[in-house]
Amino acid sequence: MTRDTEPLVIFTPSGKRGRFPAGTPVLTAARQLGVDLDSVCGGRGICSRCQITPAFGSFPKHGVDVATSALSRWNAVEERYKSKRGLIDGRRLGCQATVQGDIVIDVPPESQVHKQVVRKRAEVRDITLDPATHLYFVTVAEPDMHNPSGDFERVATALAEQWSIPEPDIELDLLKSLQDALRKGVWEITLALHQPFAGEAYRITAYWPGFFEGPIYGLAVDLGSTTIAGHLCDLSTGEVVAATGLMNPQIRFGEDLMSRVSYAMLNEGGAAEMTREVRIALSQLARAASEEAEISADQIVEATFVCNPVMHHLLLGLDPTELGQAPFALTVSDSLHIAARDLDLDTIARGARTYVLPCIAGHVGADAAAVALSEAPEQSDDLTLIVDVGTNAEILLGNRERVLACSSPTGPAFEGAQISAGQRAAPGAIERVEIDPVTKDPRFRVIGSELWSDEPGFDLAAAELGVTGICGSGIIEAVAEMRMAGLVDASGLIGGPDATGTSRSVPDGRTFSYVLHDGRAHGGPLICVTQSDIRAIQLAKSALYAGARLLMDELGTDTVDRVTLAGAFGAHISPLHAMVLGMIPDAPLDKVSSAGNAAGTGARMALCSRAARRRIEATVREIIKVETAIEPRFQEHFVAANAIPHASAPFPHLLAKVSLPETTFNVGAGGGTTRVRRRRRGA
Amino acid sequence: MTRDTEPLVIFTPSGKRGRFPAGTPVLTAARQLGVDLDSVCGGRGICSRCQITPAFGSFPKHGVDVATSALSRWNAVEERYKSKRGLIDGRRLGCQATVQGDIVIDVPPESQVHKQVVRKRAEVRDITLDPATHLYFVTVAEPDMHNPSGDFERVATALAEQWSIPEPDIELDLLKSLQDALRKGVWEITLALHQPFAGEAYRITAYWPGFFEGPIYGLAVDLGSTTIAGHLCDLSTGEVVAATGLMNPQIRFGEDLMSRVSYAMLNEGGAAEMTREVRIALSQLARAASEEAEISADQIVEATFVCNPVMHHLLLGLDPTELGQAPFALTVSDSLHIAARDLDLDTIARGARTYVLPCIAGHVGADAAAVALSEAPEQSDDLTLIVDVGTNAEILLGNRERVLACSSPTGPAFEGAQISAGQRAAPGAIERVEIDPVTKDPRFRVIGSELWSDEPGFDLAAAELGVTGICGSGIIEAVAEMRMAGLVDASGLIGGPDATGTSRSVPDGRTFSYVLHDGRAHGGPLICVTQSDIRAIQLAKSALYAGARLLMDELGTDTVDRVTLAGAFGAHISPLHAMVLGMIPDAPLDKVSSAGNAAGTGARMALCSRAARRRIEATVREIIKVETAIEPRFQEHFVAANAIPHASAPFPHLLAKVSLPETTFNVGAGGGTTRVRRRRRGA
Repeated sequence: MTRDTEPLVIFTPSGKRGRFPAGTPVLTAARQLGVDLDSVCGGRGICSRCQITPAFGSFPKHGVDVATSALSRWNAVEERYKSKRGLIDGRRLGCQATVQGDIVIDVPPESQVHKQVVRKRAEVRDITLDPATHLYFVTVAEPDMHNPSGDFERVATALAEQWSIPEPDIELDLLKSLQDALRKGVWEITLALHQPFAGEAYRITAYWPGFFEGPIYGLAVDLGSTTIAGHLCDLSTGEVVAATGLMNPQIRFGEDLMSRVSYAMLNEGGAAEMTREVRIALSQLARAASEEAEISADQIVEATFVCNPVMHHLLLGLDPTELGQAPFALTVSDSLHIAARDLDLDTIARGARTYVLPCIAGHVGADAAAVALSEAPEQSDDLTLIVDVGTNAEILLGNRERVLACSSPTGPAFEGAQISAGQRAAPGAIERVEIDPVTKDPRFRVIGSELWSDEPGFDLAAAELGVTGICGSGIIEAVAEMRMAGLVDASGLIGGPDATGTSRSVPDGRTFSYVLHDGRAHGGPLICVTQSDIRAIQLAKSALYAGARLLMDELGTDTVDRVTLAGAFGAHISPLHAMVLGMIPDAPLDKVSSAGNAAGTGARMALCSRAARRRIEATVREIIKVETAIEPRFQEHFVAANAIPHASAPFPHLLAKVSLPETTFNVGAGGGTTRVRRRRRGA
Repeated sequence: MTRDTEPLVIFTPSGKRGRFPAGTPVLTAARQLGVDLDSVCGGRGICSRCQITPAFGSFPKHGVDVATSALSRWNAVEERYKSKRGLIDGRRLGCQATVQGDIVIDVPPESQVHKQVVRKRAEVRDITLDPATHLYFVTVAEPDMHNPSGDFERVATALAEQWSIPEPDIELDLLKSLQDALRKGVWEITLALHQPFAGEAYRITAYWPGFFEGPIYGLAVDLGSTTIAGHLCDLSTGEVVAATGLMNPQIRFGEDLMSRVSYAMLNEGGAAEMTREVRIALSQLARAASEEAEISADQIVEATFVCNPVMHHLLLGLDPTELGQAPFALTVSDSLHIAARDLDLDTIARGARTYVLPCIAGHVGADAAAVALSEAPEQSDDLTLIVDVGTNAEILLGNRERVLACSSPTGPAFEGAQISAGQRAAPGAIERVEIDPVTKDPRFRVIGSELWSDEPGFDLAAAELGVTGICGSGIIEAVAEMRMAGLVDASGLIGGPDATGTSRSVPDGRTFSYVLHDGRAHGGPLICVTQSDIRAIQLAKSALYAGARLLMDELGTDTVDRVTLAGAFGAHISPLHAMVLGMIPDAPLDKVSSAGNAAGTGARMALCSRAARRRIEATVREIIKVETAIEPRFQEHFVAANAIPHASAPFPHLLAKVSLPETTFNVGAGGGTTRVRRRRRGA
């Protein structure tokens, strides 16, 4: 029982308050009130995580006057810490300073376990740190022959007594060095404990002899079909300390997912071979990350994975065959907690745990779930369309009321494949295009140079880089620009020189091509947009649009409030050009934005926050899954979406920004002109 | 709500009763009342585990009259089952027969999950089957593209809906064949589910496409320093279906435990090498067991292990170095649930679980715990001394009030080592000895023959087997018989021919040897009991007795009510001779008995009963551990126990049975006689 005569302690910013006997350490008071005040050493004056700032003076709001003697005096432990490691003036160690009178105590953000990590984009929420793994320092009883027990049992007792943590689990493998560590640390040890969710069992996943101040890290992995990206995060701050990437070595088994599924189907042991390869790559990725950050591999105690369903199965060692045929049944769809060693991930802590985000459906993977986690459509008032563009496009549509998801087989055209001069996004690839509507001449930019092709110095840069081809975002801009310049009509047909008035339109069999760049004089390539390039882009964008349209139908809407383009590719697409092309539905252009690598962001959020894990698990359960492969309306939408932009619905927001010529061309060499009209801005 | 007008169902032998609507299947009624009625197929008329016997007529005790129409009529499912598989007359299938009126229903033992397994020995309790693993048959929903989910999630849903079993765990490795099994079984599957203890999470450890009726098996392993014994048990009956054994291959690293610890200390990777060897042997053991029982390896879904602390650590892959030096700290002492694959046990079901019994202390292992489980001293009214004799003797002493444990370093003399003609218990080894107190001539029996050496036909048998040496039980009987025949005095000195009056006493340096068998004429060995043999046995038995005595001191008693000799060796020791030798304290001879391989029995009990696991875990926590190595009184007792029988306390029970000459011999060739008196029976 506390008495009214005991000192009153008020913590800010939480506002939690209580009375404690004089002499109570601030850390103890904080713990008893459930104030979020960090500590690794458990109050031994070692870790300095429990720094607080006492406030003195009059606090009418709190109804107290705080005397400067309301805390115990600066002590030797604090002095030693300050002289050795530094301490901001006015700060005290919460485990050393004791309450002596009424006091207001501020817990600065860096002393809070559940710090906020601020995200830069305005439309997304900040995340609150809440990692599954924390460090705990304990003093362990020495073995006693009169009361024998195992070293592990005494560690468990120490956790129970010093941290109120009940019976932790431990992997057999991790017991091997325990005796050594305890003796090296002279019966003091720092444990990394993983608790999947509050209330669940704790597991010891790593340990260090004596006091180890951290930090500990997690690796968030975005495992794509083509590339694998890893972000190493400090679990106590959420900060990214290293970003590494490498190619997915499975590419040699097939560029796209379906060829990998075929490889698994046609080759005995093929799936296992692909699993082996990707796991080796993941270990390399983790090693590269720890080397880049200059940390020890055993400080990486967690990893999260996001990936599409085929990669998900291949990562887990599961045969993806069923994913290649209806009904596209996943072996397992829910989120998974897996030991790192079960994934052969041997370049991080040996007891590390991994978390694989849930898959939404057989075609909509954990990568889409991660996008949903990052973009949180289920928390949005705006009806938001989120498109993650790749070989398959994952599409999410929804708001607070409902969220729908589907995937659409766009094929690899957006990645530069199936395009005559297409290439992956790499230095030398044309990525931006503008075409003058009057002269019909293009200017462009290539990856690796900031200069446009008509700017001084470009030739020098181009000579160095080479203008090697056109990447996905480049072909989208090229086609959209051609449409706006009247070089291509709404049906996707390229006009001939007579109809368009430019010699850049050159015959190519019975159709025409548009010459974007002719480098042949300098030994470079001739880069054209051919009629079949446009057909390929039309197929891809129709599939994407049809998927989005199908979800809009399900919600009974013709419009969306906001469009978010996710993925590395999405980050490079110009929203305007995407809309001209008809990849996405009409929307206010300032509401079309890129989310960057939202899947990667989702992986990082899941790494740093158990609440985020719970949230995406719940969201995935609630998401309404739409399977495009069996939906007859998908075909109808697909056909209607063939036009540029599309023929499904009006596009007032687009027309407010650009004019789209109503030119129609004829097929056949010579490209006769008929009806040339311009639909003007705002018409 | 049930109404009084609904039929009353009374189950025997449980006596559970309740009212159910007419038409309720008996199995459903049983489940709702918590009656122990087995079912694997969940009431689909496939497994026949739910057989019951309805009783008709008047049951005044239960207050009902049962009409023959109180159950639904024999149906087609039952008829088909009976014609195909047979069914005892009067039996019905509980899932097919429905309640139609007031009825008394008997659940025969074989339909109960928690059957009693009757143990043969009068002084021990029966065990009730309660294995951690059961079979569950489920029908799984097919994949639905409109409502996509993983195959595993649909299995989980089926378990929840059909068996009320929440979210099971599964190893990643076990997911690999799940899709295949479900499709082979046309969306029916039989799952082996392991639940460590009631209320804990279930784990899928094996599965079979479609309906699999079992049985499933467990392997109980007694992992000794010298031999490894395995008993394969049917988990639904407790029956042993195969017993196999092999030598511990670690013998090549050292015969006794301490040499193995030394090997680990002195050789980098030595512990890992021994771990590898013993795990290979365990896989061989399991394969031999399944071959002997002619079952498929994947039907073995569990294993239990009992072993001493050093073997415990080597099995688990833990360095035993700390066990070789004070304070003898175990890495881990509590019971462990471990995946079979983590022990490299690859000849049983790939998802199988193992249970390792708890260790009591650094010198008193899981084998001693298993003995305590089998013999249950904590449930005994008698003060019981339990001795498991081996290279180390494990000693338990106690009753309902308290149980104490210690181990004592007897050394290998009881196993025939350090004895001039000693050998392991194997064909040709002398195992029984009698010496005529008048003629001083011996007769003996060897392992492999039922004949005594003075019986007709023995020579023929001996010629075949050879008389090769003397094993542990043989040397004990020989020394005890020599003592009773006046060939050895209370101090352990062998008398010379003059003092003993027999030419079988022959000089051997400054001491004498007693010729037990001279096979030299036929090319065989000369088998003597030498003075140094007797010294070795004295050291061993003194250690054993001193340990027991130390525990008796702790309890403040000079006597025990009962002595149980456990272990393979204990099974072969004659209680009388053990008492003459002074290995054990004085006790009524009819209260000295062998428990056989009590450690192995404990392993089987833990295999078949979760309650047994709980019991031994609780008992081990309660046991008072006494460390002989640091107890000064142990040395005192050890010295006092050197005499034959011993000089610590009177032995009235022994003297009521035998007479012990009070002869005392002198040291030195010629063996002068002094004071020869006989202490007579009952004196």
